[in-house]
Amino acid sequence: MLRTLWNSRRRPFATAFQRYTALRDSQVQLLERIVGANGLITDADRLSVANTDWTGQFRGNAEIVVVPSSSDEVLQVIQLCVAEHLPLCIQGGNTSLVGGSVPANDELILSTCKLNRILHFDESSGILECEAGCILETLNSYVGQSGYMMPFDLAARGSCMIGGNVATCAGGLHLLRFGPLYAHVLGLEAVSPLEGGQKLNMLSSLRKDNSTLRLTNLFIGSEGQLGIITRLSICTVARPVTRNVALLGCRAFPDCLSLLRLMRIRLGPLLSSVEFMDQDCLDCVKEHLGLNNPIVTQCPFYMLIETMGFDQDNDEVTTLSAVEQCLLQGHAADGVFAESEKQAREIWKLRELISEAFSHDGYNYKYDLSLPMDKYYAIVEECKTIFGRECVRVGAFGHLGDGNIHLNIAAKWPSDLLKQRMDNFVYKWTVENKGSISAEHDNAPP
Amino acid sequence: MLRTLWNSRRRPFATAFQRYTALRDSQVQLLERIVGANGLITDADRLSVANTDWTGQFRGNAEIVVVPSSSDEVLQVIQLCVAEHLPLCIQGGNTSLVGGSVPANDELILSTCKLNRILHFDESSGILECEAGCILETLNSYVGQSGYMMPFDLAARGSCMIGGNVATCAGGLHLLRFGPLYAHVLGLEAVSPLEGGQKLNMLSSLRKDNSTLRLTNLFIGSEGQLGIITRLSICTVARPVTRNVALLGCRAFPDCLSLLRLMRIRLGPLLSSVEFMDQDCLDCVKEHLGLNNPIVTQCPFYMLIETMGFDQDNDEVTTLSAVEQCLLQGHAADGVFAESEKQAREIWKLRELISEAFSHDGYNYKYDLSLPMDKYYAIVEECKTIFGRECVRVGAFGHLGDGNIHLNIAAKWPSDLLKQRMDNFVYKWTVENKGSISAEHDNAPP
Repeated sequence: MLRTLWNSRRRPFATAFQRYTALRDSQVQLLERIVGANGLITDADRLSVANTDWTGQFRGNAEIVVVPSSSDEVLQVIQLCVAEHLPLCIQGGNTSLVGGSVPANDELILSTCKLNRILHFDESSGILECEAGCILETLNSYVGQSGYMMPFDLAARGSCMIGGNVATCAGGLHLLRFGPLYAHVLGLEAVSPLEGGQKLNMLSSLRKDNSTLRLTNLFIGSEGQLGIITRLSICTVARPVTRNVALLGCRAFPDCLSLLRLMRIRLGPLLSSVEFMDQDCLDCVKEHLGLNNPIVTQCPFYMLIETMGFDQDNDEVTTLSAVEQCLLQGHAADGVFAESEKQAREIWKLRELISEAFSHDGYNYKYDLSLPMDKYYAIVEECKTIFGRECVRVGAFGHLGDGNIHLNIAAKWPSDLLKQRMDNFVYKWTVENKGSISAEHDNAPP
Repeated sequence: MLRTLWNSRRRPFATAFQRYTALRDSQVQLLERIVGANGLITDADRLSVANTDWTGQFRGNAEIVVVPSSSDEVLQVIQLCVAEHLPLCIQGGNTSLVGGSVPANDELILSTCKLNRILHFDESSGILECEAGCILETLNSYVGQSGYMMPFDLAARGSCMIGGNVATCAGGLHLLRFGPLYAHVLGLEAVSPLEGGQKLNMLSSLRKDNSTLRLTNLFIGSEGQLGIITRLSICTVARPVTRNVALLGCRAFPDCLSLLRLMRIRLGPLLSSVEFMDQDCLDCVKEHLGLNNPIVTQCPFYMLIETMGFDQDNDEVTTLSAVEQCLLQGHAADGVFAESEKQAREIWKLRELISEAFSHDGYNYKYDLSLPMDKYYAIVEECKTIFGRECVRVGAFGHLGDGNIHLNIAAKWPSDLLKQRMDNFVYKWTVENKGSISAEHDNAPP
């Protein structure tokens, strides 16, 4: 059987593994010498879990999962794999939605799940040092005890691991407020396969260091191309104590942009999320999940606004006043303001369950695009015109504040021909309009 | 005369210019063909200005300044320099304090000052595209008309240029609040000397783009090692409308850290600066400039706290309440709160004039260090013990929130021997304690 080396062009170490071999028993013994018997997973059930991605759409055929418990063990595993020409797939929390965390074929899986030690936390600076296999939610709880918060958040928080978050440059729900991981990750330790395998120590915990080129930044979002992240230091942020949420309806897309601008200027750093949804998304959520849109006035576009702050007395008033100004100035036609955490969660549900609702429509074609603001919704309108008739639904939602749109097209059945036409159109249009076809997920190139 | 190629190890294009030649008339004619007669500066007065750095301590001997007015002209100049083996020095606002912007010898100067066009500003997203020679203050005023602000600020704002800010990864006064330039610079255009000179287009204006390794980040802080930045896109921030400033005195250094932590947690994103000064600094400012310390209680350490926000009604109360809590909990022994913008500026003066005051003490040995929080002041104490007797004053101030300390040692006269002993001690100590000897200025290595 001809085996591809990696399951996407992005897989690490392509140059280091020019030749590769199938796993032999003698090599398994060598691996066991490094990680111990407890560090090898071979039973069928656990292998099946590790070989299957979160969506169930991507499956690998690894015969073994290697679980090193220190970065020295990672180094030895890499050195062995380079020497023996063994391809491997790095796996953290295995929460990738695009097949990035499972083998394409029978590469061995290297799991970072035992690299889960919190190494140091400085309560004055909020700087955390930990291993790559720490779970995001665990870290968040840990620093939360001292009044801090991780500077990003994802729905997969309960199982995704910080090393994978950094390797994929996870964006998440609060990028608008706290900025990208480049702003927070201060240093890394990584194992590179170059020159037979070596450990790179870039583990600075300094917020300012201009003494050399900052290679740490190159590793953020490198998705394994350069090596395996084993440790890192990250600057956490102060944990807010208030949250306010509103949902607003807009009559035209330019109103959404005016609303965004007004919110940014009125609310400044209080603003934690600005999420966009079109009518088709809310229709879909209602149709399949029975969730009602609380806004009475029918609008083509909806905006979810969230603030998070430190002032129990005033944050609600400040947020409400900005929302009212949007209505007064006509940027929004109608709106609701959550008066309790329960109502806030209900509004968020409308946004968070759109993907699930779309899956009930049939087969889904999904695109995760970054687009310039003035082109943000234009692609959706074009898709409606071109593909609307032969599909069940064309809708879009996303992080308007970050220029990131999730375009969803639902059809009754999968069709390779339709997919090809869609890919061709969407990717070409996106590139021509200076967007990116891989905003926060690592989409495979067309 | 043997000429060094560049005035520091950091100078660009070292590999591209293996051999170099003195400037010939025929080459000047070739340069003139690219930039026109107006694009060449040769008169003595203007040459002298371009050859002298801001401190007056560093001087070059360039015979010509080349001033391209487009990135295409920059490209042609670089191609010519590579082909003709002409070394060059890139100059923006020439505000470097460490000789980084003037030639070491007679390299020609390439000035970016005519690359000063604002190319695009998106009012919804706050994303600005401009050329590298735009002055920071000009950009700040421009985006200010739409309620935005540049995400960093420097004392040199009136003359420093955005290309140089990015090339040196300028930190500045608000890093604590807005984060480093990595968080804001979205894309770059640069001219690299590789392969005879080429333009690199990394000019994305997307807040999220995971489609490839983000080379833009590698250029930030690369100080010309990789090429000349010609254009960039940067994400601005909403412009705050309130400012509150307090000065607090602490009895021991651990109290400064507790105070920092409390401020971060109580004030969250309202906090814009946390600046540290020791008693020696304030003594020096009083002695030479007559500025009185408004805090009556004698303290070894002082902390300047600044908040910037959007809530005219409440920000002052919120800041004051956090300051009071510090006093109640004993983190601070005494303090003053500015009741007007005038008082705020007076408090800031104490901090901003320390460098000038030290210069009146005699010859200054200056170190710009990043240190882990628990080691932040320890080096100053060691220096007092070792060098205190033979010097006039040892004092330190800096951005405590960023772990960045400016150590100043004043002696009556310059002494090469003392400098060597000091360098040896400070650099060794800093490296041993996992600090950086180049926090925000590009200090020459020991």
